[in-house]
Amino acid sequence: MKAELQFIGRIESPYQSLEECPRNVEPGGPASRLVLDPPFADGLLGLEAGQEVLVLYWFDGVDRALLRQNSRRTGRYAGTFALRSPHRPNPIGAAVVRIERIEGAAVTVRGLDCLDGTPLVDIKPAMPGEGHGTPGA
Amino acid sequence: MKAELQFIGRIESPYQSLEECPRNVEPGGPASRLVLDPPFADGLLGLEAGQEVLVLYWFDGVDRALLRQNSRRTGRYAGTFALRSPHRPNPIGAAVVRIERIEGAAVTVRGLDCLDGTPLVDIKPAMPGEGHGTPGA
Repeated sequence: MKAELQFIGRIESPYQSLEECPRNVEPGGPASRLVLDPPFADGLLGLEAGQEVLVLYWFDGVDRALLRQNSRRTGRYAGTFALRSPHRPNPIGAAVVRIERIEGAAVTVRGLDCLDGTPLVDIKPAMPGEGHGTPGA
Repeated sequence: MKAELQFIGRIESPYQSLEECPRNVEPGGPASRLVLDPPFADGLLGLEAGQEVLVLYWFDGVDRALLRQNSRRTGRYAGTFALRSPHRPNPIGAAVVRIERIEGAAVTVRGLDCLDGTPLVDIKPAMPGEGHGTPGA
């Protein structure tokens, strides 16, 4: 069974190579911009600066057949579903970040760990417990 | 730009219709089982009972063209990316839940809000701040 994703835009980040990317989301990290393609910009209505969002994005050029691998962070050998590695059957990255500002179709956030040009898959408001703020807030 | 998802299994939940589904993840809710297809079961190595995971799944049969809509929960009219509605360009659901037990290729969790038979897209260990536990723990 399969399904097709349509990318909704791109992420502009400071990272040009995988080696430069941090291994985790860093709430106080550098700014990145989620730039929506024009047909999707209407979907931003109601998002606000200060709000935490769950961003889904696509890891390009990875090995989708790897089911066990060594953690890049700890070296531990484990199943792909026990790791956050980009090499996975469905290479979707997920990060909870705070919106700094919104200008037209561009949403500026801080601390995303992905490559410049990464395809954007979705933006959702973070649920209580998903974000870095007070759980249940 | 497009990409293809390959479902890694199915979710067995108590909900047979959308009307029965809760509108949020409930940490103490009923048990669901993430049942991996045999080729993907090797990827579970290292996941453990008690651990929080981020589960990604696929909302079937939704309207992928809706960019603005009324929130089912609050009635508010907003952009799709400001809502958790399943009707979205890339209908991927995301939920942080705790593993209750693992038996072979089946992972039992509590509180998932999706329909019985929902296609499973990914399982990742929850990062600090994403889960319902202590932030940073």
